[in-house]
Amino acid sequence: MRAVRVVEYHESLQMDDVSEPRITGPFDVIVRIGGAGVCRTDIHILEGQWAEKSGVELPYTIGHENAGWVSSVGDAVTNVAEGDKVILHPLVTCGLCRACRFGDDVHCVNSRFPGIDSDGGYAEFLKTSARSVVKIDDALEPADVAALADAGLTAYHAAAKAARRLRPGDRVVMIGAGGLGHIGIQVMAALSPAEIIVVDRNPDAVKLGVEVGATHGVVATGGHVDEVLELTGGNGAEQVLDFVGEGGSTAEGIRMTRRAGDYHVVGYGENVNVPTIDVISSEINIIGNLVGSYNDLVELMALAAQQKVTLHTAKYSLDDFQEAVDDLSAGRVRGRAILIP
Amino acid sequence: MRAVRVVEYHESLQMDDVSEPRITGPFDVIVRIGGAGVCRTDIHILEGQWAEKSGVELPYTIGHENAGWVSSVGDAVTNVAEGDKVILHPLVTCGLCRACRFGDDVHCVNSRFPGIDSDGGYAEFLKTSARSVVKIDDALEPADVAALADAGLTAYHAAAKAARRLRPGDRVVMIGAGGLGHIGIQVMAALSPAEIIVVDRNPDAVKLGVEVGATHGVVATGGHVDEVLELTGGNGAEQVLDFVGEGGSTAEGIRMTRRAGDYHVVGYGENVNVPTIDVISSEINIIGNLVGSYNDLVELMALAAQQKVTLHTAKYSLDDFQEAVDDLSAGRVRGRAILIP
Amino acid sequence: MRAVRVVEYHESLQMDDVSEPRITGPFDVIVRIGGAGVCRTDIHILEGQWAEKSGVELPYTIGHENAGWVSSVGDAVTNVAEGDKVILHPLVTCGLCRACRFGDDVHCVNSRFPGIDSDGGYAEFLKTSARSVVKIDDALEPADVAALADAGLTAYHAAAKAARRLRPGDRVVMIGAGGLGHIGIQVMAALSPAEIIVVDRNPDAVKLGVEVGATHGVVATGGHVDEVLELTGGNGAEQVLDFVGEGGSTAEGIRMTRRAGDYHVVGYGENVNVPTIDVISSEINIIGNLVGSYNDLVELMALAAQQKVTLHTAKYSLDDFQEAVDDLSAGRVRGRAILIP
Amino acid sequence: MRAVRVVEYHESLQMDDVSEPRITGPFDVIVRIGGAGVCRTDIHILEGQWAEKSGVELPYTIGHENAGWVSSVGDAVTNVAEGDKVILHPLVTCGLCRACRFGDDVHCVNSRFPGIDSDGGYAEFLKTSARSVVKIDDALEPADVAALADAGLTAYHAAAKAARRLRPGDRVVMIGAGGLGHIGIQVMAALSPAEIIVVDRNPDAVKLGVEVGATHGVVATGGHVDEVLELTGGNGAEQVLDFVGEGGSTAEGIRMTRRAGDYHVVGYGENVNVPTIDVISSEINIIGNLVGSYNDLVELMALAAQQKVTLHTAKYSLDDFQEAVDDLSAGRVRGRAILIP
Repeated sequence: MRAVRVVEYHESLQMDDVSEPRITGPFDVIVRIGGAGVCRTDIHILEGQWAEKSGVELPYTIGHENAGWVSSVGDAVTNVAEGDKVILHPLVTCGLCRACRFGDDVHCVNSRFPGIDSDGGYAEFLKTSARSVVKIDDALEPADVAALADAGLTAYHAAAKAARRLRPGDRVVMIGAGGLGHIGIQVMAALSPAEIIVVDRNPDAVKLGVEVGATHGVVATGGHVDEVLELTGGNGAEQVLDFVGEGGSTAEGIRMTRRAGDYHVVGYGENVNVPTIDVISSEINIIGNLVGSYNDLVELMALAAQQKVTLHTAKYSLDDFQEAVDDLSAGRVRGRAILIP
Repeated sequence: MRAVRVVEYHESLQMDDVSEPRITGPFDVIVRIGGAGVCRTDIHILEGQWAEKSGVELPYTIGHENAGWVSSVGDAVTNVAEGDKVILHPLVTCGLCRACRFGDDVHCVNSRFPGIDSDGGYAEFLKTSARSVVKIDDALEPADVAALADAGLTAYHAAAKAARRLRPGDRVVMIGAGGLGHIGIQVMAALSPAEIIVVDRNPDAVKLGVEVGATHGVVATGGHVDEVLELTGGNGAEQVLDFVGEGGSTAEGIRMTRRAGDYHVVGYGENVNVPTIDVISSEINIIGNLVGSYNDLVELMALAAQQKVTLHTAKYSLDDFQEAVDDLSAGRVRGRAILIP
Repeated sequence: MRAVRVVEYHESLQMDDVSEPRITGPFDVIVRIGGAGVCRTDIHILEGQWAEKSGVELPYTIGHENAGWVSSVGDAVTNVAEGDKVILHPLVTCGLCRACRFGDDVHCVNSRFPGIDSDGGYAEFLKTSARSVVKIDDALEPADVAALADAGLTAYHAAAKAARRLRPGDRVVMIGAGGLGHIGIQVMAALSPAEIIVVDRNPDAVKLGVEVGATHGVVATGGHVDEVLELTGGNGAEQVLDFVGEGGSTAEGIRMTRRAGDYHVVGYGENVNVPTIDVISSEINIIGNLVGSYNDLVELMALAAQQKVTLHTAKYSLDDFQEAVDDLSAGRVRGRAILIP
Repeated sequence: MRAVRVVEYHESLQMDDVSEPRITGPFDVIVRIGGAGVCRTDIHILEGQWAEKSGVELPYTIGHENAGWVSSVGDAVTNVAEGDKVILHPLVTCGLCRACRFGDDVHCVNSRFPGIDSDGGYAEFLKTSARSVVKIDDALEPADVAALADAGLTAYHAAAKAARRLRPGDRVVMIGAGGLGHIGIQVMAALSPAEIIVVDRNPDAVKLGVEVGATHGVVATGGHVDEVLELTGGNGAEQVLDFVGEGGSTAEGIRMTRRAGDYHVVGYGENVNVPTIDVISSEINIIGNLVGSYNDLVELMALAAQQKVTLHTAKYSLDDFQEAVDDLSAGRVRGRAILIP
């Protein structure tokens, strides 16, 4: 089958002919790829940034945001069958450790990450596990939802966690209305009655944020912390989600957080650097957020099926993988680039 | 009546004869003081550190850790009656704001802090509100529990919050086994089945920590983070409570925190300074902790009545206030100094 | 002032001239009534059904669903001021008992119920407490929201409690789309992403339920339990709210509840009668629901201000009180009858 | 190997020689039995009560409370290794359904129940799944803990759920201090600071309840509901756990439940039959409890290793199975009968 592979770091990806994956274990699932998201992480992989961390042996097939159709299954698989439309949770987890047993499979102590440390989805077929496949609604197409598998799932996880602490009359600030943020806003509008305040440096992003569900838009031009405080009666918001995590957003986000509220770290880059006296005197919490669990992905797909979360995509044939990567590098992609075998 | 007052910053406290407080409102409660804790904050007040923040007019009576007997009550008071033994919540709160209405009275938007911004308890009588008095068990004496009103209540609040997330087989680290920490350990042992690991630079404090309920004691001499990791299977603890908050304890505490765990800020001094990538990749939370609520104080008094939380005190006559302050300044007090009118 | 009073049980209500209430305590609030809901309970009072339970002395002014404008306040009142538009929580609570201190003021051990056990709102003015008044948005009118004070608040309380356990892809059944139910559906649609299935014997009620937010409507004509099971993949719904509580709805509601799900009792009349083996083998919970708390009412008013919850009302002048009562008795009121002084 | 089997309903169990189980799947685990609990359910099975429900084909090996040593494992097993001491969760679950993915594996839609619907543990070896084996502490012996696998796990599950809602000063009633109840009391004492009130008709059981952790003992001789009300200030207890579920205990338990409290059904037999008006006016909850999850069993084993939960056992050689069954039938077993191959 055709597969796009990393053959050497600092070199271009290469289309190869490789053998199709085969079922060898009872929980194996082979998926015919319907769409594979092209992510900035893929470019970082080519630059060698993940070489040591992943320890992957070259050559290998990249692509960690995948959806498609089940092609074959091992004999112990009960949750999907041949022909089912599925999206793939980014991790293949053990199901046996305490984290997996609590549904926090993201903290699995024995996980594997296809597309990062083993063969991924820039290919015709991908082998994964029954534990990683989520059936999607008939009305959804793999190529349309593939990018929700990782970026969207992270946004869902943070927004759903914050929503559980919000009540009518509360406010939530979403810092950053880019790829993750604009999914996060849609999720928040679906799950919570709180007023949503979107903050971004880019006026177009703010506009998009308001279109997809935010109540107020604030363009970050210097006075935005004060503007948020004014919109929240001088108190700050009960929940603040920071999809940026750099360029000063952490200190700003904390200043926007109300007494006894939560500041969520989602994006990353800089340090959170805050006096302990400020943490205790306002009794705020700084909440970490990683990618969502398998069950989170099931829930996100329910929202997608109800058309409460949608995503703009630019589709490329798998053969045009280089063009997709080039377009992403050059900032020419609006929404998410998707490869279709 | 006799009252010990701040007459001028940077001068000694002074015993004065002042008029006794009188009931003027329906929720007023006048308490005959049975014990008033002498706290390091009292020394900071004399040094003028609180002058601007509290805005209190001099002279005024200090003392914010108080217990005694109800002497008289306003006509709307239904929760206590003359003669009742009581401990005083440190704040006088409004009962009307949203925080008060949720039981988070510590975040009251209209609170008063007797002993800090109005007359306190180094005196024969103190006027407070029905909302601030907690009846204590017959078996408890005001002078024995007074110091639980503020320091103990803070430790209770943090330990009870952490205990709600702990299950059998989990571990909790308590950094610092001093005034707050050794109360926190007793509370944790009463509320949680988790193994308690106490960490302190002072071997005597570690010993005390183990005596009052810790499972393991670790003297902080440099290798203590590794020692905690070893005691927790290399993973760190599910909950870490930092009663120190300075001298590097925040970074150490975060290193001791397990994936998806909570690091609690209780003590303060330095900055929490942590890369956002570390917050998200391990998905930890940094949890602020202020003093406990009124209901927290009721619960702490239940534990005290069951003798699950005890406190070492050094008692002084109110007339000997200067000796108590001097002993505290010189580090000669074991446990907590209490003034008894 | 004019006030409509119960002068004798089993006799008609009577318009009297009584003296206006005056501020006597620091937390007193006098409200000029803008609207008072006419409730079936008022008819039951006249029939003497509440005589023993309330112990109220006749004559007294009835009316327990009230909204209006603050006319004057006691000197300790900080949460409202003269002229504020307010809705009144049905209970006047002490603020001092443990339940009040946790925000569960409905379980206050010292509460009073104006309109039931003391003078209510079929009058020009009503005296209540600062603890019972909730400011409403400028865009809302007292006469339009008065009926949310009791009936709406009960529906909000149950729906909000159930919503906290619902996730995308889950289903919730609402049995009964009458007065409470159609508010409950609106609340559920605002707070939860779950699919809402409304069940009612009345096809018009089902139609209204779907109009105000339900995903599926089921007319209860005998096969409705099976119909709900079919809509839920044979499993039943994660949450079932029963606004009826009689005529067999409890057994039906329990059959509609999924394993590990919750069946909420809101309406009442018959017994819940269920084998313990069924409770444990499916591990369901049967959840009681009383009227909402003060904070619940604040949240409901936030939803009303956002126009997410609306109510149909039929307005009558206070002088036409008899006509309103007669219309209600005869089933001629669509929505809720409101008296306007 | 030797195995004790059901050959025909209404006939005695029979010792047979059967072939040892072999590893055939990657998650298989074969356990050498160290102890198998003899349970009243085993007698009911012989009486044919489970014949239709389980659908098991005769002959088969019974025994559903098992512990022992891992004898061999499939090639995907990562959580245990040959020689590990283990206790077995009673269910073999799929790990793929939504319930399993949330840690609620007891609600697995594809589970199997060895000893009930497939070969169990009255034998030298038992084949189970990696998902069902919990490693136990070196200090524990399989024969001593086997009976915690089902009866103890049910008691743990209910007590741990109730403990999460209890705070210092609260009270919990445990109705029934027999097999499950006396484990439940030990668990409650380990997890909660609440006062424990044990109620039983048998004075010896009450005495045992107090010995293992209850604060107050009440012998049920008619006035016990009033006695409990008196012990709880006339209010009833915040949590009531009913390990009996028959003979009037459900109505009594509900009368002992405080406003806004929880009544837990654990034991079963009669109907819960309660007016809806009582459920709503006191806003109580009736909570179902099934056996605990895998993670619950891990936690119970942590308590057992800390000697916070112990169990009295009467040990029999596997060859003496008939004597054990006869002793149980005749009420001659104190604690739990255990077969040891």
